[in-house]
Amino acid sequence: MTNASLIASRYIELWNERNPQRRRDLLSANWTSDAKYVDPLMQGDGHDGIDALVAGVQQRFPDFRFKLISEPNGYGDHVRFSWGLGPDGADAPIKGTDFAVVESGRIKSIAGFLDQVPAGA
Amino acid sequence: MTNASLIASRYIELWNERNPQRRRDLLSANWTSDAKYVDPLMQGDGHDGIDALVAGVQQRFPDFRFKLISEPNGYGDHVRFSWGLGPDGADAPIKGTDFAVVESGRIKSIAGFLDQVPAGA
Repeated sequence: MTNASLIASRYIELWNERNPQRRRDLLSANWTSDAKYVDPLMQGDGHDGIDALVAGVQQRFPDFRFKLISEPNGYGDHVRFSWGLGPDGADAPIKGTDFAVVESGRIKSIAGFLDQVPAGA
Repeated sequence: MTNASLIASRYIELWNERNPQRRRDLLSANWTSDAKYVDPLMQGDGHDGIDALVAGVQQRFPDFRFKLISEPNGYGDHVRFSWGLGPDGADAPIKGTDFAVVESGRIKSIAGFLDQVPAGA
């Protein structure tokens, strides 16, 4: 049984990690080597591809952080959780829901959906 | 680009179809032969497996129908939509959100999550 909260918190930790080496360590520990990420705006394969996406989003939103905004839930190898992206201490202007498939405790794939995007973004 | 609304409405149509032959026709038309379905309560593979799940749910809830309760959305081969299951003309006591992966316009996999289940169900 997948621990949905653990998977989700590790995922958020990766997106907020600004140190490239620690990001690579998190990817190695928590994502399968053939992991895939896709959302409406971008996609990346493997640790290199996913690391590039994370670095790009951090560069675009230097003052924003990801946080969980709902209780993660899941069953078997499937996990769902909703997140917000915004400045610390404020309501997140960008919100989404991600669906993970897990393999032996590591993230194998993410399909992300956007729930709220500011007008004009 | 996947037509999210079309995929979702075909999906709902299958779950509401009580005629076994028409259900098989819908599966052949709209689902890949190796399609997989999984949710927290059950799973099924291929047209036979999925048809058995649908028939079982219909038997358990003979007076209930599925309906869409949000605008389906999607991108690429990914679709998300929320549904309710309940009696005609009343608020649905059971609600969920399904995530579909589509291949050449047909559903290849569904991972379903439950959003609302009556206490004691």
